[in-house]
Amino acid sequence: MKNGAQYRNSLKKLRPNLFKWGKLLKDVTRNPATKLHVDAIAACYDAAFDPEQRTLFTNQSHLSGKPAHRWNTLMRTPEDILANARMKRAQFHRTGACHGATCAGWTMLNALWAVTWEIDQARGTTYHSRLERYFRFLEDNSLATAGALTDAKGNRSLGPATQPLLDSHLHIKEIREDGVVVRGVKAQICGVAAAHEIVCVPGGSLKEDESSFAIAFAIPRDVAGLTIVETRRPSDTRDEEEGWDAPKVGGISQAFLLFDDVFVPNERIFLNGEHEFAALFINIFTALYRAPIGACVAGQGDVMIGAAIELAQAAGLSQKIFQDRLTRMAINNETTFGLGIGAIFNGSSHPSGLWIPDPLLSHVNKILVATLPYDTKRIAQELGGGIVETGCFPSYRDLHSPLYGKELLDSLAAASDGETRARLARLQEWLTIGGGIPGCLNGGGAPDGARIMVRALEPWKEFAALARVIAGVQ
Amino acid sequence: MKNGAQYRNSLKKLRPNLFKWGKLLKDVTRNPATKLHVDAIAACYDAAFDPEQRTLFTNQSHLSGKPAHRWNTLMRTPEDILANARMKRAQFHRTGACHGATCAGWTMLNALWAVTWEIDQARGTTYHSRLERYFRFLEDNSLATAGALTDAKGNRSLGPATQPLLDSHLHIKEIREDGVVVRGVKAQICGVAAAHEIVCVPGGSLKEDESSFAIAFAIPRDVAGLTIVETRRPSDTRDEEEGWDAPKVGGISQAFLLFDDVFVPNERIFLNGEHEFAALFINIFTALYRAPIGACVAGQGDVMIGAAIELAQAAGLSQKIFQDRLTRMAINNETTFGLGIGAIFNGSSHPSGLWIPDPLLSHVNKILVATLPYDTKRIAQELGGGIVETGCFPSYRDLHSPLYGKELLDSLAAASDGETRARLARLQEWLTIGGGIPGCLNGGGAPDGARIMVRALEPWKEFAALARVIAGVQ
Amino acid sequence: MKNGAQYRNSLKKLRPNLFKWGKLLKDVTRNPATKLHVDAIAACYDAAFDPEQRTLFTNQSHLSGKPAHRWNTLMRTPEDILANARMKRAQFHRTGACHGATCAGWTMLNALWAVTWEIDQARGTTYHSRLERYFRFLEDNSLATAGALTDAKGNRSLGPATQPLLDSHLHIKEIREDGVVVRGVKAQICGVAAAHEIVCVPGGSLKEDESSFAIAFAIPRDVAGLTIVETRRPSDTRDEEEGWDAPKVGGISQAFLLFDDVFVPNERIFLNGEHEFAALFINIFTALYRAPIGACVAGQGDVMIGAAIELAQAAGLSQKIFQDRLTRMAINNETTFGLGIGAIFNGSSHPSGLWIPDPLLSHVNKILVATLPYDTKRIAQELGGGIVETGCFPSYRDLHSPLYGKELLDSLAAASDGETRARLARLQEWLTIGGGIPGCLNGGGAPDGARIMVRALEPWKEFAALARVIAGVQ
Amino acid sequence: MKNGAQYRNSLKKLRPNLFKWGKLLKDVTRNPATKLHVDAIAACYDAAFDPEQRTLFTNQSHLSGKPAHRWNTLMRTPEDILANARMKRAQFHRTGACHGATCAGWTMLNALWAVTWEIDQARGTTYHSRLERYFRFLEDNSLATAGALTDAKGNRSLGPATQPLLDSHLHIKEIREDGVVVRGVKAQICGVAAAHEIVCVPGGSLKEDESSFAIAFAIPRDVAGLTIVETRRPSDTRDEEEGWDAPKVGGISQAFLLFDDVFVPNERIFLNGEHEFAALFINIFTALYRAPIGACVAGQGDVMIGAAIELAQAAGLSQKIFQDRLTRMAINNETTFGLGIGAIFNGSSHPSGLWIPDPLLSHVNKILVATLPYDTKRIAQELGGGIVETGCFPSYRDLHSPLYGKELLDSLAAASDGETRARLARLQEWLTIGGGIPGCLNGGGAPDGARIMVRALEPWKEFAALARVIAGVQ
Repeated sequence: MKNGAQYRNSLKKLRPNLFKWGKLLKDVTRNPATKLHVDAIAACYDAAFDPEQRTLFTNQSHLSGKPAHRWNTLMRTPEDILANARMKRAQFHRTGACHGATCAGWTMLNALWAVTWEIDQARGTTYHSRLERYFRFLEDNSLATAGALTDAKGNRSLGPATQPLLDSHLHIKEIREDGVVVRGVKAQICGVAAAHEIVCVPGGSLKEDESSFAIAFAIPRDVAGLTIVETRRPSDTRDEEEGWDAPKVGGISQAFLLFDDVFVPNERIFLNGEHEFAALFINIFTALYRAPIGACVAGQGDVMIGAAIELAQAAGLSQKIFQDRLTRMAINNETTFGLGIGAIFNGSSHPSGLWIPDPLLSHVNKILVATLPYDTKRIAQELGGGIVETGCFPSYRDLHSPLYGKELLDSLAAASDGETRARLARLQEWLTIGGGIPGCLNGGGAPDGARIMVRALEPWKEFAALARVIAGVQ
Repeated sequence: MKNGAQYRNSLKKLRPNLFKWGKLLKDVTRNPATKLHVDAIAACYDAAFDPEQRTLFTNQSHLSGKPAHRWNTLMRTPEDILANARMKRAQFHRTGACHGATCAGWTMLNALWAVTWEIDQARGTTYHSRLERYFRFLEDNSLATAGALTDAKGNRSLGPATQPLLDSHLHIKEIREDGVVVRGVKAQICGVAAAHEIVCVPGGSLKEDESSFAIAFAIPRDVAGLTIVETRRPSDTRDEEEGWDAPKVGGISQAFLLFDDVFVPNERIFLNGEHEFAALFINIFTALYRAPIGACVAGQGDVMIGAAIELAQAAGLSQKIFQDRLTRMAINNETTFGLGIGAIFNGSSHPSGLWIPDPLLSHVNKILVATLPYDTKRIAQELGGGIVETGCFPSYRDLHSPLYGKELLDSLAAASDGETRARLARLQEWLTIGGGIPGCLNGGGAPDGARIMVRALEPWKEFAALARVIAGVQ
Repeated sequence: MKNGAQYRNSLKKLRPNLFKWGKLLKDVTRNPATKLHVDAIAACYDAAFDPEQRTLFTNQSHLSGKPAHRWNTLMRTPEDILANARMKRAQFHRTGACHGATCAGWTMLNALWAVTWEIDQARGTTYHSRLERYFRFLEDNSLATAGALTDAKGNRSLGPATQPLLDSHLHIKEIREDGVVVRGVKAQICGVAAAHEIVCVPGGSLKEDESSFAIAFAIPRDVAGLTIVETRRPSDTRDEEEGWDAPKVGGISQAFLLFDDVFVPNERIFLNGEHEFAALFINIFTALYRAPIGACVAGQGDVMIGAAIELAQAAGLSQKIFQDRLTRMAINNETTFGLGIGAIFNGSSHPSGLWIPDPLLSHVNKILVATLPYDTKRIAQELGGGIVETGCFPSYRDLHSPLYGKELLDSLAAASDGETRARLARLQEWLTIGGGIPGCLNGGGAPDGARIMVRALEPWKEFAALARVIAGVQ
Repeated sequence: MKNGAQYRNSLKKLRPNLFKWGKLLKDVTRNPATKLHVDAIAACYDAAFDPEQRTLFTNQSHLSGKPAHRWNTLMRTPEDILANARMKRAQFHRTGACHGATCAGWTMLNALWAVTWEIDQARGTTYHSRLERYFRFLEDNSLATAGALTDAKGNRSLGPATQPLLDSHLHIKEIREDGVVVRGVKAQICGVAAAHEIVCVPGGSLKEDESSFAIAFAIPRDVAGLTIVETRRPSDTRDEEEGWDAPKVGGISQAFLLFDDVFVPNERIFLNGEHEFAALFINIFTALYRAPIGACVAGQGDVMIGAAIELAQAAGLSQKIFQDRLTRMAINNETTFGLGIGAIFNGSSHPSGLWIPDPLLSHVNKILVATLPYDTKRIAQELGGGIVETGCFPSYRDLHSPLYGKELLDSLAAASDGETRARLARLQEWLTIGGGIPGCLNGGGAPDGARIMVRALEPWKEFAALARVIAGVQ
């Protein structure tokens, strides 16, 4: 296992291929556009050596039997997925933000564990053993993996194969004996800046004539032909400013990936043209991903609760006055966390060894994750007042103006000094309308997809039959 | 184990001591005021002999190791409580109603299993072995137990000891060598009509000067000195009418219990004056009770979904048009069911052998159970139209009038005949504003109590500390 | 104008043609199935002679210029419709219930005032002067008019003309020189039992081949060929019981109307085959009806607030503890009331003299009326506890049992005596799950119809154009 | 009246006393920190000369009888306030943003119109004629007025007079014969950058020993001793960037005002020590302000609807699929707009000539304005997808990179080109989590204040009495 310093060093060795503001980011561990996310992941590496955090941040490897970073292991039991959820909540507790580089790629590899097993059973292929070797490689090198699912998509009323621009979706351009050449654009990919590897999977189920889009593989982040463009976040320039107008402990990173004829060797390909298994992958991945996702928004909601309490006390108010609203925030948080646990334990074991949460409850949780946090944020803004709601508060630079900075800062003092109130207000702004928003509404798929799955999974006819029996209708 | 017929016979042997409309109910298995609840429980007894239902309705006894009716066994694992939840959902599926006589008393005895263990540890008493013997008695005789927690309470601003009328709460009137004499009133007790035994427990935490209210025991339903008055339900007289204006498959029963100097022998007493353990009992009981309660409202919500589908189809409408709203109903149902599973599996094992769900998640679930079903019902009424919303539909008798019955019934025909529409509408009315409402808002305690527990269990200060760290505040 | 006694006498003179439970109701003013609704309307007649209430319950006639019962006058100004709304809120304040016989028929005649004017303009007919004469007749005789819009409808996927049973909709069977013969079934018609006259209108917009359903007219309630069957309400048999298990001040009445070849003379026909004006009628009627409907649910919500306060105080609790929830109830009430006022004053004057509220805001109000009161009721049940939620409280008869009645009633005493608590609990039960539910979700049309109108009335393209301009998109 | 160019020129003549980022803003009409708000107001001035917009943007002066900019006139009728609401909705339609400099100051002067009348009646003062002269001055010079209510406040558990730092509230430091000297800090004041004048009023009701805080007056924006510090907004640096990452049509400005011994001549003072009238001012001001505030959020919501439609169409999706959600957005918008109209017309005329909306409905509207727009925004983000939710989309600069800009922009093309999708996504981001958020939750006072007013204004005891009557309780 690596510690945070070793992890940072390993990132530095990668070829720079990330850009923001039209410029190359020479060192992702230092550039303010990506540094915070790297810092967040580095702390997760360090956690492996902290007696208190070790239990959550590591797990026994399913391959070597040795302790490994949790994000390098297979989730074999409900307890493993619960620990995943708890790790996510803990990550948000420490940084207030999403930890992309220890999340989606890992979850995709887990889903592929079952999917490759199924393909091999059906087709006599050997994807599963390739994936096992890749897992060993990750474990041996303690790597962080981002996961790329969403394509640029183009016109939503057309399928991938009929788009005017084929590059709207990542696809196989050429099949060679030793691998494939892929090209196209993946969009809004989380955590790439802090990852060593990128796992790429199809963005949805695929039809027969779409087999050139049925490709799953892993590549080094700095693979030849790959250009990565970091996207904006609300108030993202604050990360580059001096001062406290944004918290500087952790943060998200999201990017567009431009694949310009990237070669992937066979050993790193886990799906290659078997279009009918894309749907299976999506089903298993979303069940795995949406069960612990409630822990993410719970963890961030916990920090909002904390900031609300601190802000109110800093303003001289007693917690009692607004306890009802804090309790409502907590109910929202625990609902998505707890329903996720329900999804996890109501799941089942796949013959490959993977534990798969109950898809119905996972999708229901996704829908709650897309709504309840908005109520939590609204309360946080109501409790915080205008300085949170729109961040209408003087900038750090103004609060340090030799002309009027002291007067301003003094005027903000209440039960706490002005700086304390400023820092707390900026944190709550960041969490609710700033760069800290984790994107759980659409992240990992829109709620409409979850609603469609709920429709597919509920036994409507059985319920209708129950009603007929009780009503006494033949 | 008993089957339904044996169960009914055993009830007939009890002394008649239930009243409704001011009249003695001579035979609870036949009187329309109680028959439906007895029918519902009888079906649960029969389920022990049905290969498909046996798994849910029985369990291996913790005492004899033999199969027993589930409600005569100890819940030792999360799987046991999940099976409890599934059994409740299945009960609602069959009858649309709450099954009191297999629920609260059983749950109380389970909570007492841990509490008596704790008292014995602390005080050197022998309550736990008494309870074990009582459990054996239940199992040997396959008995159904109602559970009485809520007292009549009197003035809410006064404690039990300072009420003008001492009988507002069940209390010890006299301690004898061989037992105690109790008196007072327990209110809104579910399932007594279909039970052989009644378990009585304190209705809340108690202070030092309230030790005469700290009493837990079990008595036969027909014990000398006990008068039971069945309460009303919405539209309850329909149960006594011929026809389809209320479904006739199952139903709830609730009662007031008047204890007029009832003697309880020592062997049936499980708490006797140890006031400080009343709070522990409430905490364990509510955690145990509120984890599976989401399955109850889910089960009833499933039937509402079914009735909504059938009603719409009977009116000639396609399910597609209102699928979004059915999906919302399903999301509500699965949320309370799934969060309950989360509470169950996030629990822990008590040294006595009882599994106790996570109290925080259980109480959060209670709060959802007190709100989400109202949305489900509202949708059911919107989809069903006016004939569901207020039941404004001709009575069974009018639909059979020789003068105009045929014309009326013909005019109600649509894609189905008039009788089918009438029966389905009456079912949905019964579920949403009729006698089928299970009372989950206040049943088993009001949501305010749950909110207080959430307040007590969330680590507010820890969350505040997290916010300080991220904000960079000392 | 008539007082209540004169009104009751005038009702007694009508031929008995109402039935419930398969039996003829010989005197609607005395039969418990209809008495409460008649009582409620009688009080409205008396209000014309009460100095405090006169302003709301009367208006200056648009025909004679003399004071008249408000429900016999034309709504010419926004103030007239606001007074209508206030009258409705006041009616609910006095009885807790809907006053059908002073509502829908009146509103339909007002809508017809504009529609007949339009038809006459377009077709050279003389409907408008007929209607004016009919209005004079109503005013001269101080009559109450029920309004029948909803047809039995049959299969919802078929239009009226293609139903297997033509009688599913009221229709013209035969056109004679002196009038028409109509037959068919109108369903869920409110207030007929307390009305002298019934106004009948088409239940929806109509196509060219549906002109035999395009008929609007007024008939005496006891016209030859008309059979009226009163429908059930939740817990409706309590109206026939002695005691306090339902309040006995006012109540709703709803009925099915069976037209078996009813002759309508020309002078009472206001639309006769002009199918293309059915949609206009519906549009004007719903705008007029849905603007003040928020006052109805507000008025009933006010009584729920009052009952919640009284119940809590009777239990010994201070209002302070639950003030937040009372405030939420009030916000719900005032929202539908106030939005209705907005709809009214944002309206416009029709050339015929009728004031027509803003249809967009009226339909939005309908949607709120279909949702907010459910929240209000839920809070009322939470505050009232189990004795409200499911009415699980001993019956009046049990509370008067010589055997145990006194003990029961004593045990219910708190800060108030047991009877007071029982009466208040039964009121809140009646308002939230009993016979007092006014049916505002589907009454006067389902919310889906209102949603369709919102879709039709919002300028979506204009909004899209605004966005393009601000975004700088060509 | 002035046109936009004249207005801009008049602003340029003011002494520069605004700062942001620690730097003096030399020309508010050009500096990107304030330019957009000035542009927005300039367009309102131009509207006076546009035949289509003139009706909304001007009104007949109550003093001269001549046409004047609406924000220089008295609101004498409900129609005047409705026009105010419509003007606000139109302003949001054009710019998507709040127009501070034509709003709060004007509303304060209107409220003072009645308050000065009352003080003069009670005390024999001459404030009202001073105010009349000031109104003439505004009209004669066509001035825009910001309004400053909120103080920095300090410790919320202390009143203004007991704060450690007196400057936490604006207060009278010295009374001179010809005026007063004031000092202290006003916080979060909207629209100052685009105003000629600032109206200052007390921030809340005041006690006897707080009379030095009871001061209302008007000053030129550039008065000696006043320093103005513009606050941050989410993503505010985008206003200073080239390109489309923020819309450039209009925007908000908010500031802190540091009064360092500012002299106010008597002629511009409208309240001076009469502490008991501070509460009256607040009551009238909030009623006036919160009635039309629903039009603001409706107007912005309309633009969100438009952007949602355009975004979806640009992605190739049909409006039909998500029409239900657009309808929900519209219902939210029309609810706050329509309830505001209800508040306006349910108001009453003050003897001074001012029309005062119904305070109860105004405060209810404030509460809805603090909640419904969050639902609207959530839907906008759900419909827009991830590129709206967190703005995770490449920056303008990246989309113009010579290295990869074209590939990126091409990959974003769908039914529209990439630029169109980018511009629309950035607009929706700006409206929902960017600089366009108008701050209606806490702006003009927090919802808790409104809840307290609802509590104060509802006749709880009357409602309780109604319940007693219907329940038959003495």
